[in-house]
Amino acid sequence: MSKAIEFYFDFTSPYGYLAAQKIEALAAKHGRSVNWRPYLLGAAFKVSGASPPMTMPLKGDYMRRDFERSARFHSVPYRQPSQFPVATVAACRAFYWLQQKNPAQAVALAKALYHAYFRDDLNISDAENVVKVVASVGCEAADVRAALGDQAIKDRTRAAVDAAIAAGAFGSPYIAIDGEPFWGVDRFEQIERWLAQGPF
Amino acid sequence: MSKAIEFYFDFTSPYGYLAAQKIEALAAKHGRSVNWRPYLLGAAFKVSGASPPMTMPLKGDYMRRDFERSARFHSVPYRQPSQFPVATVAACRAFYWLQQKNPAQAVALAKALYHAYFRDDLNISDAENVVKVVASVGCEAADVRAALGDQAIKDRTRAAVDAAIAAGAFGSPYIAIDGEPFWGVDRFEQIERWLAQGPF
Repeated sequence: MSKAIEFYFDFTSPYGYLAAQKIEALAAKHGRSVNWRPYLLGAAFKVSGASPPMTMPLKGDYMRRDFERSARFHSVPYRQPSQFPVATVAACRAFYWLQQKNPAQAVALAKALYHAYFRDDLNISDAENVVKVVASVGCEAADVRAALGDQAIKDRTRAAVDAAIAAGAFGSPYIAIDGEPFWGVDRFEQIERWLAQGPF
Repeated sequence: MSKAIEFYFDFTSPYGYLAAQKIEALAAKHGRSVNWRPYLLGAAFKVSGASPPMTMPLKGDYMRRDFERSARFHSVPYRQPSQFPVATVAACRAFYWLQQKNPAQAVALAKALYHAYFRDDLNISDAENVVKVVASVGCEAADVRAALGDQAIKDRTRAAVDAAIAAGAFGSPYIAIDGEPFWGVDRFEQIERWLAQGPF
């Protein structure tokens, strides 16, 4: 029995978005499933001491260019969000709320949130925009609003973020397969070899 | 007339070492030459505000694993140096001294320095070890020792480091082609497409 691919990502991460377009096909090709595990890079950066790359001299300029070029390279539609990066805690809470109710629908929500942010330029740090996206996958807006303020959902989200960091996640995408960590959509070649041949 | 590939790297960088094993074949395949431009990541980190990844919680653990796995992935012999990372200013000075005298020999020296550090575990922060490596590519040890203390060589090295950072370099390898920057040996696929097809 193959274990699932653990897919950690932040909804504001361009490389997480690119990975999200490809990971299910890759997993399916090798008979694996995917556990979608959104988390908060900001919390990981507090532990690692990293700075958001976009705020860094030299690196920030490069990253913006690389986001768009990498999207073209992978043939994925991409529009640099006008607000970037943004806080994704509301998006995470919506995901973990829905996951309890309907895991498949939660995956659809994750894709819809990425679509909204990186194609439609919807600011997903705004809770009302998150509500709209959740409604678009078939939930009642009033239920989502209630969930986003629910302490149990906040706690569940916090626990998921803590678990991601405990699993070693410090970037996005951070992908663990059979306990082996891979950081970045640019590790998909190595992931492909791992899935095909096992440890190398 | 195709322009050269500008190859910026630090001698203590594992990914720079991996890139150094592959870049000439890639360039030759597409009728390009390579300008080898060692520089000092520490100077770039002062500008960008980055920390050496190995010192960072979470990321450091991942990096060590990824260095060795990436070397296996690229079929490049690799031994994690027992002193890591190290200061590479002496290595850079030797390179820029030799480049003035014999550019082709300087490229051979760059390869020999990487070989010494990442295969033979020679601590290349030690000037006497750098002298040994330069001697191995055919120079007189006494000449190298004199050069390493020469203010003109120090100035030339400093200017090369400043020029690298002015060109946008913040990591290793940092590769510029036709003015387009690519960071990381994991951008070789994109570089390959760029060289084959031009801008994408």
